[in-house]
Amino acid sequence: MPEEIDNHTLDELMRALDASDASAVLAAAEEAHYADLASIYENLDDEKRDLLLKTIGPEMATDVIAELPYPLIEEALNHFKPAQLRVLLGNLSDDDRVDVFQVVSEEAQVRFFSLLGPRDKELTRSLLKYEEDTAGGRMTTSIGRITADMTVKQAITVLRRDRDDAETLARIFVVDEQGRLAGKVRLRDLAFSTWDTPVHDIMEPADEFVLASADQEEAARTLSKYDLIVLPVVDEFHHLLGVLTYDDALEILQEESTEDIEKLAAIGGEQSEVSYLNTSVGLHFRRRVSWLIGLAFVSIVTGYVMYRFSHLLEQASVLSLFLPMVVAAGGNSGGQAATMVIRAMALGEINPGNALRIAWKEARTGLFLGLSLGVAIAAFITLILPRLQAHTEAHFDFPHLALAVAAAITLQVLSATVLGALLPLGARAIKLDPAVVSSPSLASTVDISGMLIYFVTAAAILGLR
Amino acid sequence: MPEEIDNHTLDELMRALDASDASAVLAAAEEAHYADLASIYENLDDEKRDLLLKTIGPEMATDVIAELPYPLIEEALNHFKPAQLRVLLGNLSDDDRVDVFQVVSEEAQVRFFSLLGPRDKELTRSLLKYEEDTAGGRMTTSIGRITADMTVKQAITVLRRDRDDAETLARIFVVDEQGRLAGKVRLRDLAFSTWDTPVHDIMEPADEFVLASADQEEAARTLSKYDLIVLPVVDEFHHLLGVLTYDDALEILQEESTEDIEKLAAIGGEQSEVSYLNTSVGLHFRRRVSWLIGLAFVSIVTGYVMYRFSHLLEQASVLSLFLPMVVAAGGNSGGQAATMVIRAMALGEINPGNALRIAWKEARTGLFLGLSLGVAIAAFITLILPRLQAHTEAHFDFPHLALAVAAAITLQVLSATVLGALLPLGARAIKLDPAVVSSPSLASTVDISGMLIYFVTAAAILGLR
Repeated sequence: MPEEIDNHTLDELMRALDASDASAVLAAAEEAHYADLASIYENLDDEKRDLLLKTIGPEMATDVIAELPYPLIEEALNHFKPAQLRVLLGNLSDDDRVDVFQVVSEEAQVRFFSLLGPRDKELTRSLLKYEEDTAGGRMTTSIGRITADMTVKQAITVLRRDRDDAETLARIFVVDEQGRLAGKVRLRDLAFSTWDTPVHDIMEPADEFVLASADQEEAARTLSKYDLIVLPVVDEFHHLLGVLTYDDALEILQEESTEDIEKLAAIGGEQSEVSYLNTSVGLHFRRRVSWLIGLAFVSIVTGYVMYRFSHLLEQASVLSLFLPMVVAAGGNSGGQAATMVIRAMALGEINPGNALRIAWKEARTGLFLGLSLGVAIAAFITLILPRLQAHTEAHFDFPHLALAVAAAITLQVLSATVLGALLPLGARAIKLDPAVVSSPSLASTVDISGMLIYFVTAAAILGLR
Repeated sequence: MPEEIDNHTLDELMRALDASDASAVLAAAEEAHYADLASIYENLDDEKRDLLLKTIGPEMATDVIAELPYPLIEEALNHFKPAQLRVLLGNLSDDDRVDVFQVVSEEAQVRFFSLLGPRDKELTRSLLKYEEDTAGGRMTTSIGRITADMTVKQAITVLRRDRDDAETLARIFVVDEQGRLAGKVRLRDLAFSTWDTPVHDIMEPADEFVLASADQEEAARTLSKYDLIVLPVVDEFHHLLGVLTYDDALEILQEESTEDIEKLAAIGGEQSEVSYLNTSVGLHFRRRVSWLIGLAFVSIVTGYVMYRFSHLLEQASVLSLFLPMVVAAGGNSGGQAATMVIRAMALGEINPGNALRIAWKEARTGLFLGLSLGVAIAAFITLILPRLQAHTEAHFDFPHLALAVAAAITLQVLSATVLGALLPLGARAIKLDPAVVSSPSLASTVDISGMLIYFVTAAAILGLR
């Protein structure tokens, strides 16, 4: 298992850091993977971070810093002197370098920018114009580029020259004289063809590509759907600007899943780039408090309905027994429906245009769910409750109570299911993220309707007033 | 945009299918990507499915069928005659073929198996012994394999022979005489080295690998963490069995995210392989009903607490106003904490060993959240409520009510937050999926404690009995 190998090396690294033994730190760090070094770095104190970075030096630190959570990057870079920083920033791949500029303070941006070489300055400036969450903002520009009229030998010569620059050579793209995307070639086809074969003969059409302005999630889903290793990114004139790679797609889709999961639980703000344990209590607090306070005030409306109908509870206190159940069943069933719809939208299976079909499907599902719950509860009330309650309210009209509770829960589940499915579709239709319809906010909403449905149904069927 | 090109071709395909025009179907299908053909197939009626499959024939159908949702595969295969099926099953990549055998009925398994060639029979049998959700169950065995003592020329000759077989040549693995994993070589290093270079000189150590028995999610995370295109899968003796590729990892991580999202919303059972709209009402119903009924009966406990304390509500009906709020605040804050912890565990950031640190972090977060809510509500009760209620209960002791509600909500939020964080950790500690601690089941649990906390606190502070 890789974990065992890693753990051994990483334990040694920790011991070397504890002992402030620079040569042992270097030896252990050289054995470790940069992704592991980045995880370790996150959990070190300031002094050890400094020791680690200074020991491994700017070349090795480049890969580690590229893997760090964004909020730690600026502080990590400040461990280096300008001359070392120049090396480090030059070593970064162009997409990682843009990430750095996007996340550091303005003061650092200016300082770091002055250290770049002229070509990197130009490139960074041009990449910074794309939004962080677009295909252009995530792409890398170092790619293998050849033209269709080259021979395999010429192509290999060009690619060999760029070899260290190219983040991936798994797919090589062919451009025309104007730099427009014309096709793609597999490295294996270059390697296994005779040297005088024209590139044109082994080139395939590049049907899949995205615009630089496309949303990063759309780009990642395209890459995933067509099982691509790299997806070309073009401008509106079809000029090849760069590529998005499969590891970008993995990262993007994970970020988007986390975002959806958090929104569904009414957690606000941006996902913290730092891990859970390294996120401060203050930040945890800020991401949760506003939704909690908002939802609390919505619940006062539910409380008001309960207050207005409290005379019914005084007349038949047995109604309390089923009040939380009817109310909660709405939140639960509505939350299920909303989650199904939100996930199906995220996976690109449905869109607001399908609203009628979805409503019809959820209406039937909700009706069957409500009826099942109703029957189960009615059975409980007529068969089991009279025995439990024998000594106190044996005179009570259990069949009518069963009917009232069953009718209320059926109505509540049916309406909450349909509402739960339609609200996220509505949010998407008006260009909001469907996941803003979080389970808690949906639950708070259907708590109100549930309270009303329960009291009105019970009053009507039991003849209370 | 690729969508535009696709839509045009796909519209033509739909028109050709509507017109039952086989040659137009073939022309359009040849232009389309197999992933798009699979999406289209899913939404066709039986007759059109038959027309599409018979028109494109077994060779082209192979890729389409490999992309279909599992429940549609057997029916799709049954459109073909045995001779065609033999071709189709032989064309499938070995991991896709195993998937087919894992999802079809027993009758079809036997029938399909008899159509395989001897080598495929052997291979399929050996792959079927791995569980579907392990690295072994997802791996492909067709990989480039060379030994360290070959020259680059010999290696290229071997690989050229296997070229069509190899699902990916982006990384080529080096094995020793016993077939044990010894290292890896990049295709680019083979292609760009002189022909007499020994493989040994350009080989790198293969530090990252997984056991065939490893959980698929663990394998996918390893691949993602180390930015690998392929991850070698070995047995306990370090023999190279196959590889997991980046597109497997993308699929696995998406499946696991969907599973977590659904579990968090108390949706049971396996994620449907078919898209939302193609899932029957019956299946939607079955995946949701058992949790709903279970949760409903938990709510009767909450109802029972309310029933026992209903005399308090009769004495001070204003208490109803804040009952839903205090109760719901627990579910909301507990759900937030549980979600944070579950996602952090899924991303490998924390584990049950961190329980104390997590509890301490959540206790502080929960305390601050509870106090903030308490202060907000107390302000509402003392400053706003007296004016709203002026005509009915102006005699009521608002400062004490404010104190009671604020104290109750602080206690409720604090306890629910800590419980919400610890329950998923506990589930993981006893080897359950942490996401079984769904938001609704957590909410139902803390509804009970919230009801108790509210009534006991209110009775104590307001001097009710």
